[in-house]
Amino acid sequence: MSILVVGSVALDTLKSPTGECKDVLGGSATYFSVSASFFTSVNLVAVVGKDFPVKYTKLLESKKVDLRGLEFAEGKTFRWEGEYGRDFNNAKTISTHLNVFSNFNPRIPEEYKQSKYLFLANIDPELQENVLNQVTKPSVVACDTMNFWIQNKRKYLLRLLKRIDIFFLNEQEAKELSGESNLIKAAKAIIKCGPKKIIIKRGEHGAVLFSKNSIFYTPAFLLEEVFDPTGAGDTFAGGVMGYLAKANAATEVILRKAIVYGSVMAAFAVEDFSLRRLIAIRQADIAKRVKKYKKSTCYGL
Amino acid sequence: MSILVVGSVALDTLKSPTGECKDVLGGSATYFSVSASFFTSVNLVAVVGKDFPVKYTKLLESKKVDLRGLEFAEGKTFRWEGEYGRDFNNAKTISTHLNVFSNFNPRIPEEYKQSKYLFLANIDPELQENVLNQVTKPSVVACDTMNFWIQNKRKYLLRLLKRIDIFFLNEQEAKELSGESNLIKAAKAIIKCGPKKIIIKRGEHGAVLFSKNSIFYTPAFLLEEVFDPTGAGDTFAGGVMGYLAKANAATEVILRKAIVYGSVMAAFAVEDFSLRRLIAIRQADIAKRVKKYKKSTCYGL
Repeated sequence: MSILVVGSVALDTLKSPTGECKDVLGGSATYFSVSASFFTSVNLVAVVGKDFPVKYTKLLESKKVDLRGLEFAEGKTFRWEGEYGRDFNNAKTISTHLNVFSNFNPRIPEEYKQSKYLFLANIDPELQENVLNQVTKPSVVACDTMNFWIQNKRKYLLRLLKRIDIFFLNEQEAKELSGESNLIKAAKAIIKCGPKKIIIKRGEHGAVLFSKNSIFYTPAFLLEEVFDPTGAGDTFAGGVMGYLAKANAATEVILRKAIVYGSVMAAFAVEDFSLRRLIAIRQADIAKRVKKYKKSTCYGL
Repeated sequence: MSILVVGSVALDTLKSPTGECKDVLGGSATYFSVSASFFTSVNLVAVVGKDFPVKYTKLLESKKVDLRGLEFAEGKTFRWEGEYGRDFNNAKTISTHLNVFSNFNPRIPEEYKQSKYLFLANIDPELQENVLNQVTKPSVVACDTMNFWIQNKRKYLLRLLKRIDIFFLNEQEAKELSGESNLIKAAKAIIKCGPKKIIIKRGEHGAVLFSKNSIFYTPAFLLEEVFDPTGAGDTFAGGVMGYLAKANAATEVILRKAIVYGSVMAAFAVEDFSLRRLIAIRQADIAKRVKKYKKSTCYGL
């Protein structure tokens, strides 16, 4: 099954202890698409400005990401500038210029409306709902969010969650949304809001999958070198959703395996700036890393 | 095989968002002993003051902890007072009164000198080495440490490490000792100092086992209620060493299983103040929780 993803395509300017780069390819839908493209075909809906470099369009096309839903609007592409400290946790935002993204009102092309696997990347929950309304009969609907929407669009987010199969969010967001400081309590509170499953991303500490009757947790793939954590969460989600769409199933068993693949994909993303590492890897690299992950986490009891 | 442990027995006064308690049983060797006692017999070497409550001696004896090495010195028992915030990470020390512990110079009773499994809990590395010199021919020597010794007794700690089979320390300590901010790099640097294996404790994020040629990482057992994280690390070490001593082996395969048991034991310790929960559990509770841990971490790839 193919995946439809709606989110941001951006140009990032980054500083980290390992270096810096200017106006490189970024955005939630970008990381998600490239990651998922290793598992299935991906249809992208997003907006960029007329200044969006042709090389990045080509790069996405080289990964077989379908760009019929990528709108080229008058104005400049969404830009984000951030900086990471020595521990690579929490980017410090230096500037955000929404540019053409501020008027983004996603219209789903006719040929995508039958999509079965839908990922609503981190955008305004009103827009996420708007997208969902345009898709005829999706099988698996997943979404992400961020603290800004939890604080400022809570009502819309909660309304959306009732229609969500898999809700991706990070630990801090889960605690903020629920008002609970314990992760399990937070998850239980959020499950009551409607999503069938929650995947809580814990960065270098792995991920936790919750549903009403089960819990699964697994560590992140440990790396000796981290260059740039930007996009790790979206790359993770891309791996998870890609695996599900390829299997055309989202059972607990399949989801657990999907999370391992998502973790491995995220571990590639952070090994270089932007999508550099992610576009350089091959299927064999993924298989090799999954094997290493198994070797590093098995305890045979 | 039985285990010999040398470390502190203390009276703790604690405050946490879940309550408070005064002069309750604590100390590294105490948590370690009670945890390990579920797997094998434990011989404890430590010092307390004449004020040490008989009920605590009885409690340790009820767990079959051999107290022939527990010295009752003139003066007061070591006291620690601490406070935890809402996230339960990092205790804030309010006061430390070493009392009789300040002159602690452990003498190993003759009948313990043939011990095969030795745990040098967190005390001055000079004393740890002194203990090690008194034990004839141990099979597995493990030790713990803390930031104070890393900062103030680095030379002695590094000398000790050359004779250590399993070095337990937490993530922050590993980074401080090595000067590396990446966990794998830190571990590689520490392995070069001599210990055959390192177990890095990451609190609620699990543990990592390193040796020259392999790495194993596993999450902590996730809990919905945490009351008091005091002693979690020592309880973890007690579970690990207890499992090894019972198996009378410390191969990579056995160590990985031991770490799962250690994690489960630590998850009991934090569920109530002091050792309350730990002394109330039974073998069946441990087996049940290990089963739950397996169910929550398996991904079947």
